[in-house]
Amino acid sequence: MKIALIGTGSVGQTIASRLVSLGHDVMMGTRNVADKLASTSKDMYGNPPFSEWHAANKDVQLGTFAEAAAFGEIILNVTQGGNSINALKLADEKNLDGKVLVDIANPLDFSKGMPPSLIPELSNTNSLGEEIQKTFAGAKVVKTLNTMWAGLMVNPTMIGGGDHNAFICGNDAEAKAKVKALMNQFGWKNENILDLGDISAARGTEAVLPIWLRIWNATQNGAFNFKVVS
Amino acid sequence: MKIALIGTGSVGQTIASRLVSLGHDVMMGTRNVADKLASTSKDMYGNPPFSEWHAANKDVQLGTFAEAAAFGEIILNVTQGGNSINALKLADEKNLDGKVLVDIANPLDFSKGMPPSLIPELSNTNSLGEEIQKTFAGAKVVKTLNTMWAGLMVNPTMIGGGDHNAFICGNDAEAKAKVKALMNQFGWKNENILDLGDISAARGTEAVLPIWLRIWNATQNGAFNFKVVS
Repeated sequence: MKIALIGTGSVGQTIASRLVSLGHDVMMGTRNVADKLASTSKDMYGNPPFSEWHAANKDVQLGTFAEAAAFGEIILNVTQGGNSINALKLADEKNLDGKVLVDIANPLDFSKGMPPSLIPELSNTNSLGEEIQKTFAGAKVVKTLNTMWAGLMVNPTMIGGGDHNAFICGNDAEAKAKVKALMNQFGWKNENILDLGDISAARGTEAVLPIWLRIWNATQNGAFNFKVVS
Repeated sequence: MKIALIGTGSVGQTIASRLVSLGHDVMMGTRNVADKLASTSKDMYGNPPFSEWHAANKDVQLGTFAEAAAFGEIILNVTQGGNSINALKLADEKNLDGKVLVDIANPLDFSKGMPPSLIPELSNTNSLGEEIQKTFAGAKVVKTLNTMWAGLMVNPTMIGGGDHNAFICGNDAEAKAKVKALMNQFGWKNENILDLGDISAARGTEAVLPIWLRIWNATQNGAFNFKVVS
């Protein structure tokens, strides 16, 4: 399958590598390809520059946001949540129309100190997932995988035999089924993918971040996930 | 131990019954004792009037907020989050000074439709737990148990052999240790009580409510809890 990632950060890199290893054709989209390949600076989390990662992952194509969106049969949003709407506008609405748009981003607000809070206008009575669906009405937005470290998104069996939960929500049942099929390839069992309903449930899954960050801080280990016990 | 509950709703009733069964002396505090005993109306969740419950739980004493707070060696806040600060003011700061004040409430906002959101000024960059600690600086506020259905708070072994998590936070280590000892009596194992640090971590645990409510809606079962898998 042709899969596009909008964004080139560490989450996107982790997912892109895994998709290539599964045999998919992958293109990552960025604002300016030449600038991205020329950059030698680490990202805000201290990860190496994109060019270093890309040199070791030549099978991942790089294009503009719009080129990547046009390429992808499925499009994954892996930008910083505060930049997502703008990046997707640059990707161009016509390249998103009718496609499954998987939103994995979180609307983190780094302007008020650490740990980050949520961007007020994109939380509580709204969410990034809903805002994307409202802004790009022709896309079939599916929110999932945003509640965990990227390593677990694409390799859930790394911990607890894979017996923990991913949440999924979105307005289109067929789009959710397609995304679940892709998650199956990552190692997710259907019984561990909990469908929370329409895209407004993104208010709930994005609000996992505040406790995720506190647990990460307390345990100093990001390789954890939540399991719903009942 | 003498334990006070500020609030008389279904969460408080569940905890009060359990505390009595464990041999504690329990007083619940309310705004007006005569009114509370005379009321014949169901609460907003459709639970029977307090008087019916109290008729079957005569060992639980009933007093004003201030009488209950004066009585308790440990005080549990089980009011609706939006009413907590006012109820605790009526309980009187001098009755809280130096005591462990366990905050189990959530700042739910029912004014913007269902499911409820969080009260904006008590969420994201603030929390009810922190607001209580700021307002009643002499109390030792410990936030815990607010992330689950009341039945599980006091009887965690009801599901999954009790092998799921409670979160705890607060500024005073000794106060947290006292609350953990009480939770042990409910059936919580220490290894399942995850200390997230100071009271600002209440921003994280209170933000569990949005996803809790969505899971409850999707599964139609409130008897679930989260387990951190790593």
